[in-house]
Amino acid sequence: MRFEVTTLGTGAALPARGRYPSAQLLNVNGKLYLVDCGEGTQERLRMAEVNLGRIAAVFITHLHGDHYLGLMGFISSMHLMGRTAPLDVFGPAPLREVIDLQLRISGTYLRYPLHFHPTEHRSGAPVLRDDRMEVTALALRHRIECTGFLFRELPHPRRLAKETVDMIPHYARTAVKMGQDLILPDGRIVPNADLTEPPPPQRAYAYCSDTAYTPELVTFLEGVDLLYHEATFTETLRARAKETMHSTARQAATIARDAHVGQLLLGHFSSRYKDPNVLLAEAGEIFPNSLLAEEGRTFHVGPEAKH
Amino acid sequence: MRFEVTTLGTGAALPARGRYPSAQLLNVNGKLYLVDCGEGTQERLRMAEVNLGRIAAVFITHLHGDHYLGLMGFISSMHLMGRTAPLDVFGPAPLREVIDLQLRISGTYLRYPLHFHPTEHRSGAPVLRDDRMEVTALALRHRIECTGFLFRELPHPRRLAKETVDMIPHYARTAVKMGQDLILPDGRIVPNADLTEPPPPQRAYAYCSDTAYTPELVTFLEGVDLLYHEATFTETLRARAKETMHSTARQAATIARDAHVGQLLLGHFSSRYKDPNVLLAEAGEIFPNSLLAEEGRTFHVGPEAKH
Repeated sequence: MRFEVTTLGTGAALPARGRYPSAQLLNVNGKLYLVDCGEGTQERLRMAEVNLGRIAAVFITHLHGDHYLGLMGFISSMHLMGRTAPLDVFGPAPLREVIDLQLRISGTYLRYPLHFHPTEHRSGAPVLRDDRMEVTALALRHRIECTGFLFRELPHPRRLAKETVDMIPHYARTAVKMGQDLILPDGRIVPNADLTEPPPPQRAYAYCSDTAYTPELVTFLEGVDLLYHEATFTETLRARAKETMHSTARQAATIARDAHVGQLLLGHFSSRYKDPNVLLAEAGEIFPNSLLAEEGRTFHVGPEAKH
Repeated sequence: MRFEVTTLGTGAALPARGRYPSAQLLNVNGKLYLVDCGEGTQERLRMAEVNLGRIAAVFITHLHGDHYLGLMGFISSMHLMGRTAPLDVFGPAPLREVIDLQLRISGTYLRYPLHFHPTEHRSGAPVLRDDRMEVTALALRHRIECTGFLFRELPHPRRLAKETVDMIPHYARTAVKMGQDLILPDGRIVPNADLTEPPPPQRAYAYCSDTAYTPELVTFLEGVDLLYHEATFTETLRARAKETMHSTARQAATIARDAHVGQLLLGHFSSRYKDPNVLLAEAGEIFPNSLLAEEGRTFHVGPEAKH
C-alpha cells in the first residue's frame, strides 16, 4: 500500500532562490493530504501535476507565513475549479479567523464545505481518524504555538497463513482476517491464531516543522518509519537556533536516534546554507540514516525504503 | 527620465501554468512601486533580480485573492531582510484588518513602519503625491469594490530656450525654469515666455485591473501614454464578461480609443486562452496600438515608446 511524502518546499522563513517555503504532500493509498502550505504551494502542486481536487485535508502547524500563506490561494482555486467535495482544514484556532475574514472581504461563498478543526497543542491529542489513518498532535516548541502531526496507518487485517488458506471458505476470509475464529460446517472451532499471521506493522510518519530541541517528543516518535524534523542551522549557530527556537541538524538527529526512527528527513534549511549537505553531514554523525528534503522529491514511508 | 512598467503576472483568477496572478512593478526614475501583489509576487521579483527593499509603496486595487495574496509574504520578507524604511500600502479599507490580523497571529512586530492608506472609490480622488508623481483613483466596476490607479509624473520645469540661455545668469536659471520672469541687473524685466519653452508633457500610466466595461472612465483616462486595461475574454464570451464584471478585449480597446491613449496594454487573460494573441487581434481592430502584457516584460511609458 502506498504511503509517500513529497517535499514541496525546504526553505526557512526567508525564501531563497530555488527553495520554497514549507509544504508537503502525503499520499496514503491514493488519498492526498497537504501538510503546511507556504506561499505558492498551489503552483508547486500544479508543477508536480497533482490534481488539487483529490486533496482531502490540509494540516497547518503554525501561523508563521512560510507555513500557511498559500492556504487562501489553494482554498480559492478549489472553489474556482468547481470543487464540491468537503475540505477538512486542521490548524491553530486563529486560522479560522483568517480564512473567514479573507472569504468575507473577497465576497466568496465557497461552493464546497470547508470544515475547520482547531488543533490541540498537546502531544498525543487526537486530530483525525479517517479510512486511511489516524493523526495525532505533537506539541512542538516554537516562538508561537506550533503543533506537529503524527500520521499512522490504521491497523492492517491479519494475514492468512499460506498453509491453511485453502481450508477457509471464501465467505469467512474477511472475518478471519479481522481476527475471528473459524467455525467449520461440522461445528468445530479453529482458533484464529492457527489460521493467520500477525498483520504488517502500522507505518508512521511524523512531521516536526518548526521547533526548538524538544526531547519530550521522543516518546511520541518512538519507532516511526520516517521522521521529518526541521534542521534550520548547524551546531555553529546553536545559540541562534536557541534564540529563534529552531533546531540544529545535530539536535534533529539526536531526536531521531533516541526515538529509534527508521529514517530522518531534514528540511527548513536557513537560506545561508547554499548547499544543505553540510546539515546532512552533521546529522549523519549522530544518525546515519538521514536524508535531505528536496523540492519535488518523493520519499517512501516504511521499512522497505526505496529511494 | 525613466518611467517603466514591468508586468509580473498576466493571469486571471485561476492560475494557469506559466501565467501568474496580477502584479506590476513601476520604476519612476529609480523609485519602485508595486501595483497589485498576487500570490508568489515576491518570488517573481527575486527572479527579476529586483531589490525588494527599494520598493517604496504598494497599491492594491481590490481584495480578490489573485490581486493581493502575495502581500503578506512580501511584507514579512521585508521584515526578515531587515528593512527599516517605511512602506506605504494603499488599498481598500478591509486590507488593513487582514494585515493586522496576520501580523498579530504570527507574533510579528515589524522592524519598519508600515503606513496603510485606505483608498477612496471615486475617480479623481487623490491617493499619493510624492517627489516623483501624483497618483489618483479610478472607480472601476467589479463584483467587489475595485479601485484602479492613475500614475502621473509631477510637472517638469520649463525648458530654457536655446537662443536666450546665455543671457540668463546661472543663479537665476532655476527660478526661470519654474516660470519666473528674469530681472536684469539694470532693472529691466524679461517675461518668462521670451526665455523658455513649455515643459515636456507629464507622462501618465493608468492601471485598470478588474472591471466591467466602464465608459465613465474615459474622461479620466484622456490622453494617458499607456493604459493597462484588463481583457479577460473575447467578444464571444461577452455575456460571461458581463456576468463576472470583466471586460472583453474589444471593450478594453474601445476605452483606449475613446480616451485617445498612446498605447493599450492588455492583461488578466482567462486561462482558457492558451495563446493571448486572439485577444490582441480583437483589440487591434478597434485600437491598433495595442500590446500584450507578458510575464517579466518591461514597457516604457511615454510618447517615444521603445519596446
